[in-house]
Amino acid sequence: MEKKIITISREFGSGGRTVGRLVAQKLGIPFYDKELVEQVALESGFAPQFVEEHGEQSPGKTLLSYAFAPQGVPGVMNGLSAADFLWNIQCSVILQLAEKGPCVIVGRNADYILKDRPECLHAFIHADIEFRADRIVRLYGESEKSPQTRLNEKDKRRKVNYLHYTGRNWGDVKNYDICLNSSTLGVETCADIIVSIAKNA
Amino acid sequence: MEKKIITISREFGSGGRTVGRLVAQKLGIPFYDKELVEQVALESGFAPQFVEEHGEQSPGKTLLSYAFAPQGVPGVMNGLSAADFLWNIQCSVILQLAEKGPCVIVGRNADYILKDRPECLHAFIHADIEFRADRIVRLYGESEKSPQTRLNEKDKRRKVNYLHYTGRNWGDVKNYDICLNSSTLGVETCADIIVSIAKNA
Repeated sequence: MEKKIITISREFGSGGRTVGRLVAQKLGIPFYDKELVEQVALESGFAPQFVEEHGEQSPGKTLLSYAFAPQGVPGVMNGLSAADFLWNIQCSVILQLAEKGPCVIVGRNADYILKDRPECLHAFIHADIEFRADRIVRLYGESEKSPQTRLNEKDKRRKVNYLHYTGRNWGDVKNYDICLNSSTLGVETCADIIVSIAKNA
Repeated sequence: MEKKIITISREFGSGGRTVGRLVAQKLGIPFYDKELVEQVALESGFAPQFVEEHGEQSPGKTLLSYAFAPQGVPGVMNGLSAADFLWNIQCSVILQLAEKGPCVIVGRNADYILKDRPECLHAFIHADIEFRADRIVRLYGESEKSPQTRLNEKDKRRKVNYLHYTGRNWGDVKNYDICLNSSTLGVETCADIIVSIAKNA
């Protein structure tokens, strides 16, 4: 069974997004990350920035978000919390993207949403804490919080969101076909391994 | 840095041992599994069968094993429990094997014992429960216990042993450079991926 759809879950700062972009480039298939976010935003009526911030965050964080819900679309949320509404839209968008054909989808719990599809390859990219700390400072700059705190906060939010919506533990090997340590293998090598599986599977 | 020494940790029934043997064959390097057990047995004076049964089991299980300790070697265990004594010998043997040159080592917590060596590639092989159940019945035959029970018992003992001696969680992605699902990727493909990394790293 050829692996045509590749989902990439990743620790913050691991370079997983870059791995995904490289894989898509090398295979000549679409790469969905920001694009996915924008599409979700368009369908939901939320602002793109809101979707990007809350799409992988802890559901509790968005309970106060009714204030930011789409305006002028009465009843569109059907009594759901903003987080649950967003989750439903994300599931729907990801299923639609998968129907379109081969692609790479980064984050957004796509591994779970597409877990029963044999044409999918589910990858998880992780890295040592020093590699990730160095990478986020280099890419996103310094902030008031230490890199370690920023990493812990972001990962914790992703874990809570994932557990809440999937009932599974984020980063558990059982969820993925392949897990790669980008700090020991290198970001390029991670991409090459995934491309090789996608081509030869 | 070329990855010359490959450690393979594996769930019972995942085919990890076969992956290891294939990798060693394809790279033309020694494969240590039963051979390692025999070497440990020779050094410790324990019977090979005892070492094989207790080398990856829960330490509690071996506390009653003084009765099976080497005979006629007074003081050889230095006041250690049989399990701790065996652990020390295993560490020493694995470090010696790693010094000898490129090789594949399956199990025996070798990933932890060699964790600080950059020339090592640490792989974990896991698989879906149905794949593993089918495989152990096919390879080792039926038994009074259900395949599910046999898998759970074996994995649990490996987890307890690993936690006791390493302070880490067995099967946690953080311990490995690469984790592969042999039931979705195939045993041969898992071997090919590891060979490819070892050659190109």
